[in-house]
Amino acid sequence: MINIGLDMMGGDFAPAEAARGVHDYFNQHDSDCHLTLLGNESAIRIELEKFAIPSDKISIINTSQTIEMHEHPTRALKEKTDSSIAVGFHQLANDQIDAFISAGNTGAMMVGSLFSIKTIEGVIRPTIGAYIPREDGSLGLLLDVGLNSDCKPENLNQFAVLGSLFAEKVLGIENPRVGLINLGEEEGKGNLLAQATYPLLKDNQQIRFIGNIEGRDILINKSDVMVCEGFTGNVMLKFAESFYDLVKRRNINDEHLNRFNFESYGGVPVLGVSKPVIIGHGISGSKAFCNMIITAKRMVEVDLIHKIRNSFAN
Amino acid sequence: MINIGLDMMGGDFAPAEAARGVHDYFNQHDSDCHLTLLGNESAIRIELEKFAIPSDKISIINTSQTIEMHEHPTRALKEKTDSSIAVGFHQLANDQIDAFISAGNTGAMMVGSLFSIKTIEGVIRPTIGAYIPREDGSLGLLLDVGLNSDCKPENLNQFAVLGSLFAEKVLGIENPRVGLINLGEEEGKGNLLAQATYPLLKDNQQIRFIGNIEGRDILINKSDVMVCEGFTGNVMLKFAESFYDLVKRRNINDEHLNRFNFESYGGVPVLGVSKPVIIGHGISGSKAFCNMIITAKRMVEVDLIHKIRNSFAN
Repeated sequence: MINIGLDMMGGDFAPAEAARGVHDYFNQHDSDCHLTLLGNESAIRIELEKFAIPSDKISIINTSQTIEMHEHPTRALKEKTDSSIAVGFHQLANDQIDAFISAGNTGAMMVGSLFSIKTIEGVIRPTIGAYIPREDGSLGLLLDVGLNSDCKPENLNQFAVLGSLFAEKVLGIENPRVGLINLGEEEGKGNLLAQATYPLLKDNQQIRFIGNIEGRDILINKSDVMVCEGFTGNVMLKFAESFYDLVKRRNINDEHLNRFNFESYGGVPVLGVSKPVIIGHGISGSKAFCNMIITAKRMVEVDLIHKIRNSFAN
Repeated sequence: MINIGLDMMGGDFAPAEAARGVHDYFNQHDSDCHLTLLGNESAIRIELEKFAIPSDKISIINTSQTIEMHEHPTRALKEKTDSSIAVGFHQLANDQIDAFISAGNTGAMMVGSLFSIKTIEGVIRPTIGAYIPREDGSLGLLLDVGLNSDCKPENLNQFAVLGSLFAEKVLGIENPRVGLINLGEEEGKGNLLAQATYPLLKDNQQIRFIGNIEGRDILINKSDVMVCEGFTGNVMLKFAESFYDLVKRRNINDEHLNRFNFESYGGVPVLGVSKPVIIGHGISGSKAFCNMIITAKRMVEVDLIHKIRNSFAN
């Protein structure tokens, strides 16, 4: 049975919202999954007791430390060896869990992803993506959104492959279209990075490259996988998040605009590392935790790691 | 009297909307300004006859050619010497007009700005900015939005000075705050460019640097001048424009969100060149033309060019 590790101490509403998410997951979805909950056992049990969660579906690993949101990632991971994040990565590295989810310290999750578990052979740099909702109900995948603030063309070329595999296998988008984020549509446009990346994507037989896309194409369903370096991606993602905040401040309630509540998607996958890892948003609520469990389980079920490994084996 | 050159052939609704904008300007604002209208004289006269515009306030320069929206900028400017844009820049370079406005071929306007008139001594690269509306009614200035897709730290440092002068003198923001667009708040965060730019801005006595700002800070009134390279700026601006389009498609009518109709601001100033130039959006309507005239006049009135020249004289 698939065994997913969940950091119960991560996020602003830990462990209450994580516990509620666990309940929602077993309540609404097939329960063909075991969850390993990491954190302060007594605090977790207090929350779990509020719900009727089948006890054979979960196990708890008690950890005595918590990495706080603003701690220095590398130092915290090194010093707090009995923290939920450190133990989670240890469990993952030793195949005791199949995937690991945390809405805790993002930096520590990135450092753990890069150093506690291995990068898949052939992948120069792993990447993190974010979902972009479209009016037709579909989701686009934007990557990188901050793990790699300086990139080389080959990095972006690899992000396109990683994103395409995730979009196809996990999001269920057949033959996903890849767009290169750029400041103009025509081939030859762009900064030096985009200009040099274009021919690589064009020649890449593993992806379906549709050319350059502009800022105005991100919210429409023009491409499924949208590639850029992590600086632009991060600025855009936070910009889009703040647009949702603005819409809420304006007391606007629109079915589609509500989908820009990025918190509800739960978290972003780390792609290119040898195990499924999902990094949650600090403000994750129960819906986010539930969605992260669903995504993590799907990543394991379709054996995404194996498919990525094959793609990069040549 | 201030004499502003206006390309009547630029934009998707030329010359009708430009003519309406001219009418609105004289109707709603002080008429202490002369307008030199460039384009097909008979077409212009047909539109002008619909309004009662004081004939002593305008003069028409007949041009026989028009640079279309998708022509190659450099080639078109070189070959179509009797186009409204080419003649406009010629007039500007020869001090026959004090400022030049066009909603025509953006590339041709950029090429004209860079090569027909001179860059101010000391300015490495001119820049173009865009307005970002805030809920309190103020406007932020984002720059660069596409003229410089690859930048060095010193470029960004100069954009900060150019943007601050425009914000203070033209937008009337006292002692404007400058933010460096980045993927984190703390000093030391960012890609190599942002990391190297931070100390330059910090040491720059000509500006009021408030540190890094993130994507989520752009729509709030955290800083008045927001600096980044033109790749990120262009992608963000078009992304923001598409958010407005989305809001309209959702049939949402909100006073503040309506201010994201970037078209209504009229156009973006080119900063760092030796004459006031405003590049309008292709879809500019009469309000946009009227606003561009107001901005151009203000740029001349406050002698922005002279102030920029002084700043870069050291």
